[in-house]
Amino acid sequence: MTPDRLQRINSMLDQRQPDLTVCMEGVHKTHNLAAVVRTADAIGISDVHAVWKNETMRLSGGSAAGSQNWIDVHDYSKTEDAINELKKQGMQVLVTNLSDTAVDFREIDYTKPTAIILGQEKFGASAKALEMADQDIVIPMVGMVQSLNVSVACSVVLYEAQRQRQAAGLYQQPRISHQRRQRILFEGGHP
Amino acid sequence: MTPDRLQRINSMLDQRQPDLTVCMEGVHKTHNLAAVVRTADAIGISDVHAVWKNETMRLSGGSAAGSQNWIDVHDYSKTEDAINELKKQGMQVLVTNLSDTAVDFREIDYTKPTAIILGQEKFGASAKALEMADQDIVIPMVGMVQSLNVSVACSVVLYEAQRQRQAAGLYQQPRISHQRRQRILFEGGHP
Ligand SMILES: C[S@@+](CC[C@H](N)C(=O)[O-])C[C@H]1O[C@@H](n2cnc3c(N)ncnc32)[C@H](O)[C@@H]1O
Ligand SMILES: C[S@@+](CC[C@H](N)C(=O)[O-])C[C@H]1O[C@@H](n2cnc3c(N)ncnc32)[C@H](O)[C@@H]1O
Repeated sequence: MTPDRLQRINSMLDQRQPDLTVCMEGVHKTHNLAAVVRTADAIGISDVHAVWKNETMRLSGGSAAGSQNWIDVHDYSKTEDAINELKKQGMQVLVTNLSDTAVDFREIDYTKPTAIILGQEKFGASAKALEMADQDIVIPMVGMVQSLNVSVACSVVLYEAQRQRQAAGLYQQPRISHQRRQRILFEGGHP
Repeated sequence: MTPDRLQRINSMLDQRQPDLTVCMEGVHKTHNLAAVVRTADAIGISDVHAVWKNETMRLSGGSAAGSQNWIDVHDYSKTEDAINELKKQGMQVLVTNLSDTAVDFREIDYTKPTAIILGQEKFGASAKALEMADQDIVIPMVGMVQSLNVSVACSVVLYEAQRQRQAAGLYQQPRISHQRRQRILFEGGHP
């Protein structure tokens, strides 16, 4: 690895936000999976979670999601397994959803450990996800379309999280463990 | 038209922002075109501009962009024609671009009449667009990917514009002309 590249990777790792994550529930179009992971990487997310509704999806979707190999993708076949894991990690679990009970996404404090659930392209988030999540959040819309594209919804929420975390200084101090840094440097340096 | 539907359309028209627009320069993947127009509609944009690099694109892309028929799509075959038109309308022309001279997108005042240029998926914005625009703007990224998906970049900027315009009260007063409202009600009411 050249010194330049090592420096670039270390500077990326210095800004990683291990306590911010996205969980895709049944998202399956490859361009959406790729766009979500790309945005996640861009704002410093280190882990993405994916619930696959069937094996075919897992295989085709997993490769689209994994194409950015600087992010760890965690796979599940059940929504409750994913959400239980996120809660075990002490995250507030938010589900993006067009429900009447949802609060405006800008009212949330994203400096807390946070997981954001994204629903499937056609059917949205499952009843299970809505039931288990701490809060549903919505992005306001004033037009005629019923919903936003899922990767668009994801990025709008993530850049609000980035704005809040930037203001709170969370990008100024390295936050991932030494061990994890060493593993990523090793894996990324020897592709 | 049912009274409910009429009310819904009128309430949408009450929040339209005729002095905020997006100009897609050579964007050609149909899922990106569709996502851009969908987000534009969601934040109250009434007009979208598109520069088509060739006829095939115009035909396939035009239908994807036009699938939301509550937005007027304006077609061009040359970047300068599009930008000249936007300037004639008194817009500040911003180009989203990963350049060194670009300012952070959050530093812009989007309550002014504003057009946001989006570059092509692979090659980004043209030299012509960069030369003619008033300012290039960038969305900060701290990861390893080189750029965001174009519809993602669009939505992050548009929701910042929405936030500023909301705070400035620009969604509280109807802003489109009576004539335009009548035309849209007529066209939308008789599909
Ligand atoms: C196309 S939408 C699903 C629409 C589905 N018919 C429904 O009503 O949930 C796909 C996903 O994008 C996200 N999404 C889209 N628009 C949203 C909005 N305005 N607010 C919050 N989330 C949104 C949600 O995660 C949603 O599950
Ligand atoms: C995939 S990018 C083009 C990448 C191209 N290689 C370049 O360097 O311009 C497509 C478009 O998305 C927008 N875009 C993507 N990431 C952006 C960012 N971080 N800031 C501003 N615009 C961005 C720009 O409009 C860009 O032209």
